[in-house]
Amino acid sequence: MRTEFLKACKGEKTEYTPIWIMRQAGRYLPEYHTVRSKGTFLELCKSPDRAAEVTLQPVDILGVDAAILFSDILVPLEKMGAPLEFQEKRGPVFPNPIRDQAAVNALGIPDPEEDLGYVMETIRILRKELADKVPLIGFSGAPFTLATYLIEGGSSKNYLTTKRMMYEAPELYSQLLDKITECTIVYLKGQAAAGAQALQIFDSWVGVLAPCDYREFARPYVERIIKALKEVTDIPLIYFANNGATLLDQTRECGADVLGFDWRIELDEAVRRVGPNISIQGNMDPLALFLPEDKLEARVRRVLEQAKGARGHIFNLGHGIVPEASPAKAKLLVDLVHRISREMRG
Amino acid sequence: MRTEFLKACKGEKTEYTPIWIMRQAGRYLPEYHTVRSKGTFLELCKSPDRAAEVTLQPVDILGVDAAILFSDILVPLEKMGAPLEFQEKRGPVFPNPIRDQAAVNALGIPDPEEDLGYVMETIRILRKELADKVPLIGFSGAPFTLATYLIEGGSSKNYLTTKRMMYEAPELYSQLLDKITECTIVYLKGQAAAGAQALQIFDSWVGVLAPCDYREFARPYVERIIKALKEVTDIPLIYFANNGATLLDQTRECGADVLGFDWRIELDEAVRRVGPNISIQGNMDPLALFLPEDKLEARVRRVLEQAKGARGHIFNLGHGIVPEASPAKAKLLVDLVHRISREMRG
Repeated sequence: MRTEFLKACKGEKTEYTPIWIMRQAGRYLPEYHTVRSKGTFLELCKSPDRAAEVTLQPVDILGVDAAILFSDILVPLEKMGAPLEFQEKRGPVFPNPIRDQAAVNALGIPDPEEDLGYVMETIRILRKELADKVPLIGFSGAPFTLATYLIEGGSSKNYLTTKRMMYEAPELYSQLLDKITECTIVYLKGQAAAGAQALQIFDSWVGVLAPCDYREFARPYVERIIKALKEVTDIPLIYFANNGATLLDQTRECGADVLGFDWRIELDEAVRRVGPNISIQGNMDPLALFLPEDKLEARVRRVLEQAKGARGHIFNLGHGIVPEASPAKAKLLVDLVHRISREMRG
Repeated sequence: MRTEFLKACKGEKTEYTPIWIMRQAGRYLPEYHTVRSKGTFLELCKSPDRAAEVTLQPVDILGVDAAILFSDILVPLEKMGAPLEFQEKRGPVFPNPIRDQAAVNALGIPDPEEDLGYVMETIRILRKELADKVPLIGFSGAPFTLATYLIEGGSSKNYLTTKRMMYEAPELYSQLLDKITECTIVYLKGQAAAGAQALQIFDSWVGVLAPCDYREFARPYVERIIKALKEVTDIPLIYFANNGATLLDQTRECGADVLGFDWRIELDEAVRRVGPNISIQGNMDPLALFLPEDKLEARVRRVLEQAKGARGHIFNLGHGIVPEASPAKAKLLVDLVHRISREMRG
């Protein structure tokens, strides 16, 4: 198995910089569409054989250094008792948003094997399939990000309803976050037990919080998850606080082995600020895949140069690859990262 | 006339911290709805008497220390030759997006008095009405932000089309930005000539750019505008780069008298990084207006404390006040800023 990804997570020396791509199993790949066309998005998440198949596609097609479980951060919420739909234009929708005490009380904590067995089964299939290839990353959403979906009932422009609950009903908000946190802990423990070799926590929308609100309303729950996981496993934990440049002084204290960064921050600044005990992951703008080849190469070189002082670096995009991206360019990106990072070490 | 706002812009001593609120003439005010109900949003922008009326409302109702022209950053683009519609749910729409050479070539540079006379007339009315009250701020969008609307045809989720033009057709992109920049320069010069006593440049979407892309694709145009204005006027120029914390090392070099900040950055960090020659404006989360009164007061105090080292500070929200906000809370905010900042000086 190629272990550069795990080594970089732990800050061990690598021969080249490993790369994986957020949403690497996704709509930019024709092979994905072929599998996806057999049913809905949620059905794909819940079909271990097919979910495993699309997870493997970018490993084989692009040559990335890690696979990430094909799933969605919202599936455990459905099993907490919040019905979930994916609508073609709107994206994820919770028709019954969680906004009062009764709704919070009604939420349960799903058992990973009983209620989310399809995720655990996908992980077990993948570990067999990936045995001689690359490590498998499991994941969850971070509590704040998950809460926004439950409270807003889906995506949001300014997170008004979430922030109103934070500000106007902080006790209710903290009860909801406690439950989501507990759910996430058992869910990630389940993934680790099933065989995930690293775990990423996606805090996709946390960048809408002022640093003082992050300290009070988001960070404690992330820390609790990481602490709980560290008690039972030593697999690398990656925390990705999207648009979180101004939260870095706090996110570096959360206990993660790796911090993920979006493209808004200069990676050398991120390296300086995280210090010598945390590896970094990121951070090319996903849309930089539309640069012509020579400029793409320069951009890749720049990211690699900026990451030089890091304890460890895993190349990634700063957010998910977009459906409009070219698979050939994505493959080129992987090759460029491997070639240039080898040269830089030589 | 109360001059605290202008003094703070220039870094002169003030008796209290002046405050105005982005979108202070807006949908949270019942008095605004009364005027707005007489026609469409664009008709309101184009009716000098009514636009002046809503501009004055927050001055009288809230007691803010500056008025800002009621208009929209997109109106000059319409007069460049890009038809503009405001659709109830979608917001602004350009049905004919600017995406090729012919479309760029066809754009003209509107004359402020000939083509945008309604804006200049509104300013002249307001200067008379405001004579013994507060200063009047004029404004424009920044070229990158304006370009995103023209290229995308409206709002956007990830600015794919804009970035593709930047990356795939940089020459076309720069021609478009040159034209928008020229338009903005004459438009803002026109506003200054008509009587605006300060000018704010809104770079609402620039936070989607990596710092290296900001340097190449957005910053030069802002600098050109500020330089051109500085040649003809000494009224304060405010540059607001929304979600721009990671761009601060560049935005502070743009030549503005004042930099505006959204709530994602701790204001004391912003003060440290802008240095002693630039005033700051901001930066409370607009949704913090939903905090209970005691916590709102603590939040206001925190912002004022963090701004203490600044050359000058104008209190503002980090983005526009939302329609759901309470006018009473907005009034309370203004009173709190005035009272606490006086106490802090005493």
